[in-house]
Amino acid sequence: MIEDKNPLRTPIEQLGEFGLIDHITKSFNIQNSGTVKAIGDDAAVVKFEKHTVITTDMLVEGIHFDLSYVPLKHLGYKSIMVNLSDVYAMNAVATQVTVSIAISNRFPVEAVEELYEGIALACMNYNVDLIGGDTTASNTGLVISVTALGEQDKDKIIYRSGAGDGDLLVVTGDVGAAYMGLQILEREKAVFKANPSSQPDIEAYSYLIERQLKPEARKDIAKLLEELDVKPTSMIDVSDGLSSEIIHLCKQSSVGMKLYEEKIPLDPTVISACEEFNLDSTTVALSGGEDYELLFTIKQEDFPKIKANPSLSIIGHVLPQSDGIHLVTRSGEQIAIKAMGWNSFEN
Amino acid sequence: MIEDKNPLRTPIEQLGEFGLIDHITKSFNIQNSGTVKAIGDDAAVVKFEKHTVITTDMLVEGIHFDLSYVPLKHLGYKSIMVNLSDVYAMNAVATQVTVSIAISNRFPVEAVEELYEGIALACMNYNVDLIGGDTTASNTGLVISVTALGEQDKDKIIYRSGAGDGDLLVVTGDVGAAYMGLQILEREKAVFKANPSSQPDIEAYSYLIERQLKPEARKDIAKLLEELDVKPTSMIDVSDGLSSEIIHLCKQSSVGMKLYEEKIPLDPTVISACEEFNLDSTTVALSGGEDYELLFTIKQEDFPKIKANPSLSIIGHVLPQSDGIHLVTRSGEQIAIKAMGWNSFEN
Repeated sequence: MIEDKNPLRTPIEQLGEFGLIDHITKSFNIQNSGTVKAIGDDAAVVKFEKHTVITTDMLVEGIHFDLSYVPLKHLGYKSIMVNLSDVYAMNAVATQVTVSIAISNRFPVEAVEELYEGIALACMNYNVDLIGGDTTASNTGLVISVTALGEQDKDKIIYRSGAGDGDLLVVTGDVGAAYMGLQILEREKAVFKANPSSQPDIEAYSYLIERQLKPEARKDIAKLLEELDVKPTSMIDVSDGLSSEIIHLCKQSSVGMKLYEEKIPLDPTVISACEEFNLDSTTVALSGGEDYELLFTIKQEDFPKIKANPSLSIIGHVLPQSDGIHLVTRSGEQIAIKAMGWNSFEN
Repeated sequence: MIEDKNPLRTPIEQLGEFGLIDHITKSFNIQNSGTVKAIGDDAAVVKFEKHTVITTDMLVEGIHFDLSYVPLKHLGYKSIMVNLSDVYAMNAVATQVTVSIAISNRFPVEAVEELYEGIALACMNYNVDLIGGDTTASNTGLVISVTALGEQDKDKIIYRSGAGDGDLLVVTGDVGAAYMGLQILEREKAVFKANPSSQPDIEAYSYLIERQLKPEARKDIAKLLEELDVKPTSMIDVSDGLSSEIIHLCKQSSVGMKLYEEKIPLDPTVISACEEFNLDSTTVALSGGEDYELLFTIKQEDFPKIKANPSLSIIGHVLPQSDGIHLVTRSGEQIAIKAMGWNSFEN
């Protein structure tokens, strides 16, 4: 696939590690005044005025992505989103990233360029600076390790641990679409393998595929909440599926939770794709993952401030820990929620 | 090899990603008052009082290490050292690290424990906090990605770019030993392959092997220089070999350099091992790498302050850029220095 799109194939060895770094980083501009020194020394230097938040995530070929249908530019973009999402989940402003890649010689320089085009676009769109990284050979697949930095006033940082009895559970956007996008892509891959001349008709699934290949982190939510004058009591990002994240919030806040099936925001195309694939859409929302939405709790008294907002859905409420964690189905049945989210060691 | 040392083999799948993280991080203590929140949320939170330095390095199995002779505990220790060395090369104090690993199911939980024992020991010895990371599956080898954070007053941070004409070039400790340690280990591996019952006699090479397997970053140098009242004009760590680092300093400071062969500090065991392997010890010092010493320039007027110090060797001096970069051999010949340091894409 890479070969088709890149008739030019410059071997990485031709540039060497330092040449490659110079080559791919020359187009990056610094956008944050706190970035004192970016790439080019033993370490980057940053001046943070507030508290610093730091998060890191690693994407591994064959585990987190399949290059037979993931374009490298999208992969670069997504590798930044995955990390910024964690910064936003602290209610912080993302400011810098470092990106390390291990890449085998089967990739030409042009492939690395494509990857960094996506990284550059993400940095530009989200106002973060690329300040460092490492570029090394790999005997096998591609590995991308990103660390993201951000900042926020101490008293505005939101942890997973602050949810209290009676709080409302809120999720941004909609969930389950990224997982269904993956199902579509996997199916098209299988069809293509069986019949390489088939033309995929994926028009109807464009939202799902975009959510999988090019997710956007919720940079806007911190600002929205500030405008609404709402301070969440706890917050987490939805990367492994709603159930896994709800369990994290409950465990770290020492609370129980009730989640209402009918309140879970699903895009209509998720519902139709679930029907097509004979999957239960609630299960997909609970266990699918990669939505990169934010899940948070707010005080009941803040309900009027958020109830009309199209970006926010109230999907449940907090209970004492002894009440456990349950899904209330459309038929009123209560089902205990267990972590069913994505676990790379089980795949 | 792992199997021999670990009769206990708990599959990683048994714990899962979150179980594994809980398991391996429970023994880590927080040592820095700036660490507000370590592992356990979407991101870590740190309060830096000074300017922050950030660096990251990735170690890939088969490229940077060979598990047939590198114990996992040493590998964990070294993965931290490699990163702290870059923090110290900015004249900063290392304060936090994040560690991400991609690991295949062929490793049992006990192997991951061993790796993290080394990471924990390094954190304890160097007074840094493990504040985050990612743990994921890998289809093939082990990948370790570390990001290190540190801090320093703005005017005490030392870049690669400050060397001026007439400055003296100084290196800490001695160089070339880590590379010779690698040669010994590679030879013993070949011997063992040919005759598995042979008993290696590596007593005589213990310094070299220790420098390769368990390097120590020069945390002490910033303090030493402060005591001596010397502020380097430029600084870099010696990770890829003296020649590569000298070229970096010259390029970024827009200067030339003269390096004196006879001044390069070599441990006697490096010289004897070079004779045994029929290698030129100067070439080993210039191109060997992995010494994790510091290379820096100082003003000539600071010469009296450092001349008697056993940790510091003056090995050359800075010239105008037009004079180029040369090694002056013992016989007085001048040879242009080219980057011959380690490049993972050429190996």
